[in-house]
Amino acid sequence: MSAVVLFSGGQDSTTCLAWAQARWSNVQCVAIDYGQRHIIELDCARKVATAAGVNLAIVPCDSLRALGGSSLTGTLTVPSGVPAAGIIPNTFVPGRNLMFLTIAAAFAFQRGITELVTGVCQTDFSGYPDCRADTMTALQAALRAGMDSPFTIHTPLMFLTKAQSVLLMRELGRLDLLALTHTCYNGKIPPCGICPACLLRAKGFAEAGLADPLIAASLGPAEPPAAPSR
Amino acid sequence: MSAVVLFSGGQDSTTCLAWAQARWSNVQCVAIDYGQRHIIELDCARKVATAAGVNLAIVPCDSLRALGGSSLTGTLTVPSGVPAAGIIPNTFVPGRNLMFLTIAAAFAFQRGITELVTGVCQTDFSGYPDCRADTMTALQAALRAGMDSPFTIHTPLMFLTKAQSVLLMRELGRLDLLALTHTCYNGKIPPCGICPACLLRAKGFAEAGLADPLIAASLGPAEPPAAPSR
Repeated sequence: MSAVVLFSGGQDSTTCLAWAQARWSNVQCVAIDYGQRHIIELDCARKVATAAGVNLAIVPCDSLRALGGSSLTGTLTVPSGVPAAGIIPNTFVPGRNLMFLTIAAAFAFQRGITELVTGVCQTDFSGYPDCRADTMTALQAALRAGMDSPFTIHTPLMFLTKAQSVLLMRELGRLDLLALTHTCYNGKIPPCGICPACLLRAKGFAEAGLADPLIAASLGPAEPPAAPSR
Repeated sequence: MSAVVLFSGGQDSTTCLAWAQARWSNVQCVAIDYGQRHIIELDCARKVATAAGVNLAIVPCDSLRALGGSSLTGTLTVPSGVPAAGIIPNTFVPGRNLMFLTIAAAFAFQRGITELVTGVCQTDFSGYPDCRADTMTALQAALRAGMDSPFTIHTPLMFLTKAQSVLLMRELGRLDLLALTHTCYNGKIPPCGICPACLLRAKGFAEAGLADPLIAASLGPAEPPAAPSR
């Protein structure tokens, strides 16, 4: 069985990739080059895919930049701190996940694949309506009807906290992959630590009681472990 | 009230534009530049929009060409004749209408517009699952949920035959606009007359008992009418 993971090289989609690899023998990743301000995202996507041993297709999508309207593709200021509930922050790209999943579905359709995996999550709800379970259910119906294909959109992180997501990755035995991911809205490695995405990530690791391997990796190599005695 | 028409410069979306202008005072058109083989489509879109006095936004979408898989964006041969029922022809771009309507919805969202109009039609069903009413219903639900906005997708042609669509345009008093449209899959003006789109268009005008103003226009100007006597 095969699956397509909508992939960004970030923590959530990397966790989805590991989750998918534990379930399906043929997993392919699709990343979208939509004119991200931080090309580091696609670099991370390549590194993670290579480390995980999966094929990565990068599909361009220039529509979002043309539509404008978000600090993730334009020049607006990224807000610091966690946004207030009920407010759609200016990091919202209208229709972004709808478009990206439709692209992933078209990619899967052409390969006879029906299983789609995405890291959207409504627990750490950031004000993005296209991350909610009801949106995914509605989109799944639209994709099924629109391509006449029995797609299933899997959302393994939908109801997990960031801490539970970190623990899931440990359970899957692939915490190492998270050292290669990025999260920071400001595109920094080491992470800026003050944007909403950094704050959520740090909180998740703290609550899980684990160190973030990205922080360790970006501080340079640790002392090599002593050779095991036999 | 305002509306956004998903616009191609073809017969169907031009009929939708006239239909929308009869209902709403502020109508805007969105055309998608997706790497059509025939750039004539966008030229026609500009001409029709100008003649109708509406704003036209052309939004790029390079994803479909990158995904490949259709004779409308690639180099496959366009089939002649009407496709057999139940067969998805190679002019199918998987997910095309889903993507285009999502782009139109994002465009509308940023302007506070909720009414979307598209010329999809399942009566002259060409084997495209993304033209069906159930797909539009499902997509409308996905767009509403994904952008938290009460979109309505209007499909005035959904259950009309091509002949009824021609008669609707006469009723709207804008048959003149159809002289500026294109339909031919092979990008010809005068139309090639043998591709599925040309055959459907010709059949529609024939059954409506009207001459196609595009044919008349492409054959050159008729004799000027005699000056009216007073």
